[in-house]
Amino acid sequence: MDAAQAQLLPEWQVAQWLNTEQSMSLADLRGQVVLIHAFQMLCPGCVMHAIPQARQVHEQFADQGVAMIGLHTVFEHHDAMQPHALAAFIHEYGLRFPVGVDAPSADGQPVPRTMARWGLQGTPTTLVVDRQGRLRLRHFGHVPDLPLGAFLGRLLSEA
Amino acid sequence: MDAAQAQLLPEWQVAQWLNTEQSMSLADLRGQVVLIHAFQMLCPGCVMHAIPQARQVHEQFADQGVAMIGLHTVFEHHDAMQPHALAAFIHEYGLRFPVGVDAPSADGQPVPRTMARWGLQGTPTTLVVDRQGRLRLRHFGHVPDLPLGAFLGRLLSEA
Amino acid sequence: MDAAQAQLLPEWQVAQWLNTEQSMSLADLRGQVVLIHAFQMLCPGCVMHAIPQARQVHEQFADQGVAMIGLHTVFEHHDAMQPHALAAFIHEYGLRFPVGVDAPSADGQPVPRTMARWGLQGTPTTLVVDRQGRLRLRHFGHVPDLPLGAFLGRLLSEA
Amino acid sequence: MDAAQAQLLPEWQVAQWLNTEQSMSLADLRGQVVLIHAFQMLCPGCVMHAIPQARQVHEQFADQGVAMIGLHTVFEHHDAMQPHALAAFIHEYGLRFPVGVDAPSADGQPVPRTMARWGLQGTPTTLVVDRQGRLRLRHFGHVPDLPLGAFLGRLLSEA
Repeated sequence: MDAAQAQLLPEWQVAQWLNTEQSMSLADLRGQVVLIHAFQMLCPGCVMHAIPQARQVHEQFADQGVAMIGLHTVFEHHDAMQPHALAAFIHEYGLRFPVGVDAPSADGQPVPRTMARWGLQGTPTTLVVDRQGRLRLRHFGHVPDLPLGAFLGRLLSEA
Repeated sequence: MDAAQAQLLPEWQVAQWLNTEQSMSLADLRGQVVLIHAFQMLCPGCVMHAIPQARQVHEQFADQGVAMIGLHTVFEHHDAMQPHALAAFIHEYGLRFPVGVDAPSADGQPVPRTMARWGLQGTPTTLVVDRQGRLRLRHFGHVPDLPLGAFLGRLLSEA
Repeated sequence: MDAAQAQLLPEWQVAQWLNTEQSMSLADLRGQVVLIHAFQMLCPGCVMHAIPQARQVHEQFADQGVAMIGLHTVFEHHDAMQPHALAAFIHEYGLRFPVGVDAPSADGQPVPRTMARWGLQGTPTTLVVDRQGRLRLRHFGHVPDLPLGAFLGRLLSEA
Repeated sequence: MDAAQAQLLPEWQVAQWLNTEQSMSLADLRGQVVLIHAFQMLCPGCVMHAIPQARQVHEQFADQGVAMIGLHTVFEHHDAMQPHALAAFIHEYGLRFPVGVDAPSADGQPVPRTMARWGLQGTPTTLVVDRQGRLRLRHFGHVPDLPLGAFLGRLLSEA
């Protein structure tokens, strides 16, 4: 997405954070490039592709100015993917980056609040926010390492 | 394991079956080669290696005399891997072979009954039982496709 | 291929052997299961799939009665795949099993003699010969590890 | 490598070009980011990792300002990797980017001229040159897609 046309990404609405002691907002991360993986712990495409990529981004780019954020956007099998189960998943897969639990809808709809607000189609979805908080990439499905790396490299080079 | 020295594998103790309407016993499967994958739905090695292999074995060998059985041997994170969560996992990963839930211990120990009875060390564990019900292979960790295929081929050739 | 209907595989015609000091015939290998990979050193599918599989078969099954044989069936780019180049390839890829150079046609046709005699369509082609010298499997393209292993296991179980 | 400390990369010395009708110099590419893969067609690490990556870089980044260049730096098995064999390799692997044949040494040494001039240790080696012709990265072995992509993205963002 062209920087000139990009819009501020509205804040996420997170019910609970894991892997971080304090709650976080997008505004808190202004100045960093933010890579958000919206995922579900029982989504095979997430587990096979998005989660390993997220681990690598966190390990390789956290000290270069990329904030890696997981967002657990559960829209199916809610009983099986409650926060205590997510905590076990995070432990078993050795994830170290902050993971937020997308807040359930207020009216009992299956799609949680941030997923609805951002209009996400499913999981995994990759979103990249620039240093100014603008949404620059949103992709439903897997983004291969080479173009994702290049995109991060470009955004890191912006003032 | 040499056929002459192999022992009958004691029956599993299963609290609940998924993907099959009737409960099953090892004795019911006498005459078939039985491949058992003991796994946990949140064990990365199981998800990456054992589950895809089990799917392929079921698809390719079910009509050749191999009964593929999953055994959900939960010994950690029990709250996160209850049967309703396992059902969601099976649905998402498209598994079609019978999966039994290893019965919880009677005395509140974390290791379930079949896992304890068989002395399994962890997950994934691969077990192969011959047409006469004898345990011929038990391996903690992943067995690559080539030697597993050869082992199944040999046991299928036995009378 | 059903054993009852299988035919003896005619002998290969090899101009030169690598990785073995003496020339070999199919008849010499009677009593063993023979896995033949017909390949070309500059064929990507061979290099990516067939060659790694052949290495593993040789390492895991040579002492169980499987003779792994490579047959270099060059039908294109002949100048680039002469025996001295094949020797470099074998060295670089660390192959230890015998590799025969399919004999060039007598009349200047691009397809070499064994390839023509056996009616092979291209590379890689996998052929499996039983202990009695009969052709039991011929497949143009890659045979995955699981079914290939099972097939070897079955043939090894035959008297 | 920090831009301030980076040095101009001396010109390559190429005996022959493939996949391009005109000979090329580094100076001709000033203004583009240049990714150079030094490889040998019979080097397994090159074939497995460097060549597929080079293909992807060419397909995805050629129109963004990255010039992908292969340099065939043969220092062993010279007879097996002559230009006519390289042409067959390029055809079979479907490579479309320019590949230069590193010029043989004048005094019969096995290491070719550019490889010696640049002090390369072996193959594959990845080199990245910025828009001003300065060497910014040199790595013997494989650079994974994620950090390579990020590096290209950063250099593309430089004026």
